[in-house]
Amino acid sequence: MRTAVGAREDTAFIFDLDGTLIDSVYQHVLAWSEAFDASGIELSIWRVHRRIGMSGGLMLRALQRELARPIEASTIADLQAAHRAAYLRRAPSVRGLPGAAALLHALTSAGVPWAIATSGERAVATAGIAKLGLLEEPRVVVTRDEVAYAKPNPDLFLAAADRLGVDIRRAFIVGDSIWDLLAARRAGGLGVGLLSGGYGRGELERGGAYRVYDDPADLLARLDELGVRNVG
Amino acid sequence: MRTAVGAREDTAFIFDLDGTLIDSVYQHVLAWSEAFDASGIELSIWRVHRRIGMSGGLMLRALQRELARPIEASTIADLQAAHRAAYLRRAPSVRGLPGAAALLHALTSAGVPWAIATSGERAVATAGIAKLGLLEEPRVVVTRDEVAYAKPNPDLFLAAADRLGVDIRRAFIVGDSIWDLLAARRAGGLGVGLLSGGYGRGELERGGAYRVYDDPADLLARLDELGVRNVG
Repeated sequence: MRTAVGAREDTAFIFDLDGTLIDSVYQHVLAWSEAFDASGIELSIWRVHRRIGMSGGLMLRALQRELARPIEASTIADLQAAHRAAYLRRAPSVRGLPGAAALLHALTSAGVPWAIATSGERAVATAGIAKLGLLEEPRVVVTRDEVAYAKPNPDLFLAAADRLGVDIRRAFIVGDSIWDLLAARRAGGLGVGLLSGGYGRGELERGGAYRVYDDPADLLARLDELGVRNVG
Repeated sequence: MRTAVGAREDTAFIFDLDGTLIDSVYQHVLAWSEAFDASGIELSIWRVHRRIGMSGGLMLRALQRELARPIEASTIADLQAAHRAAYLRRAPSVRGLPGAAALLHALTSAGVPWAIATSGERAVATAGIAKLGLLEEPRVVVTRDEVAYAKPNPDLFLAAADRLGVDIRRAFIVGDSIWDLLAARRAGGLGVGLLSGGYGRGELERGGAYRVYDDPADLLARLDELGVRNVG
């Protein structure tokens, strides 16, 4: 029996990292919250949670609107440094999400290309990916430092598809936040939502998710729903 | 001009505490998560978040189902002690939510009775209420220790209405979690959701919320939507 040309390369997966492959969203939330407190900025914690995963610059812009006052440039630099320090202190408690490594291994075995694209910086992303305990290094990891704009701009996902050599219109883009899903739509890919970052199903669906799963383990168990064959 | 008899007492408000009046949900989430880690139980953090606000016993029962294995009674006691210690360590960072004190004062000034009903224990609740900086002690506070079953059972809200001397069918029950809204329906009151505990609007609406607001400040600004007069 002959396989049709390119039959195994007709899709690809691009994954967000925090809240999608590793269980780090709540540590980021409290790290930002601690940073705001240290700068004397009172901001409810749920408002921080709703901004995790978007570009840090856009997040601060959004929060200034919610505070109804500007934050000085020097304060912004302090906030970013304080968040980084507070997150790194919490990083030892971060684990891979259930099924994350198994899902990536299954895709590799099935010949489905995949990449990781994160709004985080390279050093933090590398430490996070190490939590997954993968058998091999990921082929493609795109981080904040490598593109002009982070999510919800499409740059990270477009760069990931480009490096994989796949057409983004055939790629599933998996993320836990509405910023992933909005960026997926702008990039022209199909967004898939995961509940593992703490967003509700309705928010992800309204953000444009093609399908919503609990976490990587649930997605792996239902890959058939995305039309992925040859897995498992 | 004469006021109709009882015109100012035709409604009442019963408030949940954590995530509704004080910004403490994320501290509870990470405190539970730390407790599970210490007992060698690997549980994704978003699954803990989704259980905050329900009875501790029901929470542990639900999490055993998600773990697909039982947790021993001695481990449960350890978990509860570890959560308490981890939460108290984080408690200094807990603040009142924006508008919480102003909302309660406005209701008092308008002659609208209100109470607080929480799944937490008395000592922790008292410390939480102190964060609000109220001008007077609340007239009615019902805690976990005083009823047979916590949320989503209706007992806490029924006890609060009883102590206020109001008909629960005319009361608004304000909470941030679906456990509040389910308990509100069982109690026969009208549930109002707040986003300040980190649930999405859709989840709260599907849980039966009559209306959903951002936080106490947003609810105060829109009390007209609940038919509350004489305020502000």
